[in-house]
Amino acid sequence: MINQSYKQMLQKKSVIRELSEYATARGKEIGYENVFDYSLGNPSVPCPPDFNSTMIDLLQNSNPVTVHGYSPSLGIESVRKSVAHSLNDRFGMNYESKHIFMTSGAAGAVAHALRCVTQPGDEVITFAPYFPEYNPYVNQTGAVLKVVPANTENFQINFEAFEAMLNEKVAAVLINTPNNPSGIVYSTETITRLADILRRKQEEYGHDIFLISDEPYREIVFDGVDSPYVSKFYSNTLSCYSYSKSLSLPGERIGYIAVNPSATDADIIAVMCGQISRGIGHNCPPSIIQLAVSQVLEQTSDLSVYETNMNLIYNKLVELGFTVVKPGGTFYIFPKALEDDAKAFCMKAKNYDLILVPSDDFGCPGYFRMAYCIDTEKVERSLAVLEKFVREEYGINK
Amino acid sequence: MINQSYKQMLQKKSVIRELSEYATARGKEIGYENVFDYSLGNPSVPCPPDFNSTMIDLLQNSNPVTVHGYSPSLGIESVRKSVAHSLNDRFGMNYESKHIFMTSGAAGAVAHALRCVTQPGDEVITFAPYFPEYNPYVNQTGAVLKVVPANTENFQINFEAFEAMLNEKVAAVLINTPNNPSGIVYSTETITRLADILRRKQEEYGHDIFLISDEPYREIVFDGVDSPYVSKFYSNTLSCYSYSKSLSLPGERIGYIAVNPSATDADIIAVMCGQISRGIGHNCPPSIIQLAVSQVLEQTSDLSVYETNMNLIYNKLVELGFTVVKPGGTFYIFPKALEDDAKAFCMKAKNYDLILVPSDDFGCPGYFRMAYCIDTEKVERSLAVLEKFVREEYGINK
Repeated sequence: MINQSYKQMLQKKSVIRELSEYATARGKEIGYENVFDYSLGNPSVPCPPDFNSTMIDLLQNSNPVTVHGYSPSLGIESVRKSVAHSLNDRFGMNYESKHIFMTSGAAGAVAHALRCVTQPGDEVITFAPYFPEYNPYVNQTGAVLKVVPANTENFQINFEAFEAMLNEKVAAVLINTPNNPSGIVYSTETITRLADILRRKQEEYGHDIFLISDEPYREIVFDGVDSPYVSKFYSNTLSCYSYSKSLSLPGERIGYIAVNPSATDADIIAVMCGQISRGIGHNCPPSIIQLAVSQVLEQTSDLSVYETNMNLIYNKLVELGFTVVKPGGTFYIFPKALEDDAKAFCMKAKNYDLILVPSDDFGCPGYFRMAYCIDTEKVERSLAVLEKFVREEYGINK
Repeated sequence: MINQSYKQMLQKKSVIRELSEYATARGKEIGYENVFDYSLGNPSVPCPPDFNSTMIDLLQNSNPVTVHGYSPSLGIESVRKSVAHSLNDRFGMNYESKHIFMTSGAAGAVAHALRCVTQPGDEVITFAPYFPEYNPYVNQTGAVLKVVPANTENFQINFEAFEAMLNEKVAAVLINTPNNPSGIVYSTETITRLADILRRKQEEYGHDIFLISDEPYREIVFDGVDSPYVSKFYSNTLSCYSYSKSLSLPGERIGYIAVNPSATDADIIAVMCGQISRGIGHNCPPSIIQLAVSQVLEQTSDLSVYETNMNLIYNKLVELGFTVVKPGGTFYIFPKALEDDAKAFCMKAKNYDLILVPSDDFGCPGYFRMAYCIDTEKVERSLAVLEKFVREEYGINK
């Protein structure tokens, strides 16, 4: 008989995916250029040309048996070393290759990190608004996800609610900065205060509390924004990274976990992750992608388009009277809907071929997310449509 | 606190990996050409040139945002369709794309298939000798792996022991043909009898028993060997495939599950696998590898070297008086050791720089595995060393 709990998961589809599928279908009817699809966080700028030329060089000039051969289950040693060096240079850390575990993107990194530092029955705390996929990642470990309500004033951490939620069962705290969906970057002040609380609680409870820092948007930070490297502030940090966004390679499934060298059991966490991979039959990211990425670690795609888009949308939203916190990074913005029911709001927008994602699944009802990783030209055309929608449906005049 | 059960897994290292690491280290001392390393099943022939040229074409002539973009979590639709068509043409099946789920190799396929058709407490039966990684795959589902003792006469199925082991708790039967480590291919007679028993037991127990057929060596079958397509014989079959061996791409982590269209719940099994992937944060194989593989589905590497190597080794083993069943495929051979303790036998061989894997972890003590996916020239040189070892340690004369 097929597994009943996985079967039940089929009932609950991803709202984001459904909207994205709707947008694609609608595009076939009226031309995709006429659908203002803000649903999916799929990068819109190409990868750096050096990534492709490195791939071609490997395919043309290396021994195919080596290039396409098995990677060690923790990742190719030279690649792990390059990642460690790059992080050390950029952030003043002291990683060695043994602290780096190569993963299939940030998803693989966060899921492995959670399995690594929790036991069934433990609690994991995260902060609204949060990435909905944290639910399946945590659920399958046997731990329980607890969500601290959003600080809607600025989408930094609601520390009072956080402290109230902390208890002896908490094994890990999971943060995402720069944040999907709010676009906010946690400030040095926020991270410092978070680290202080965690250190105090570790002492009080007499056990480790790991900080799992989900950082796929780390390189997408806008002009002048304070963007601290989380692991600098707290020893028991597992930094989870993906090259999906910075190098525009979401389909190639590559990222890593970087274990703070001062963390408890720092020297065995990567090896444990290898054991976790064994059981799920995953092993490691593709060899050729590991080798190619290791040659372009210091590069990014041209990410400037995201800030351009953000400013256009933010200014328009403010002009139209929306309550919205200005993003510090990512390619998301998270305004308050113009009625309490964000789903109803987004359904109405859909009639204008404006595809917005209601915030309910992000644990922060009454808001909506726009993923503005689309062409600036399309963003510009969408603003008039947004204005028309708002004026006709909600009677708001400029 | 880090997870204690994963931590405990660290105690039990893979014997194959340890021997392989020893061989590499020893190679640095005396030159790797002088180490007769039969430990690892890493293909020794290059991938078909068309795979690399398809990759280069995608990198040079396609939109990088599309090529490197997210794949749907079940795999790229056009790729799934190509896989279905290819299997239909070759084996007279009637797969549609909805029956194909793209995976990270056969490891990912088997691990997903097991999660899909078992509940915690169920039993999964496999047959010795068997691939040791089945233990972690099954253990992490909460089901229990039961091993039918080997039929050492010909390494087909020991049906008496199998029937004695069947009971109402059995949810799945896991086979591997062509077999790692024995090199034996299950005959039409074996598969027919297995299917008959499973149908009878399904009826008797009133529930499905799924047959998970692990087939990464399907294309490596030697001259004249009877090699049936398992799913033709039994509706509730999930065929698990990898391109690692047939296309020599083990590091690129790509394979699939093909669900027999007549299986119970055939239309939702691939979708359930997508849900399983969500929880482990894996998602799907890399987009560009999916796209490239779909262009070379009907090709293989030049696999003839494995049959050449097999004949050389088999003839020598017979000449030296070993008890050995002639492989019908793969790049493994599984002779009886010359003493009861296979580990002691392999330790002695190591002194001759002959790296053999003792069979204990394959659930069939007293044998050893040779992975002859190495250059024929090296195989030839190894035979004199094998003879020297046998003569000096066991006094066997030609």
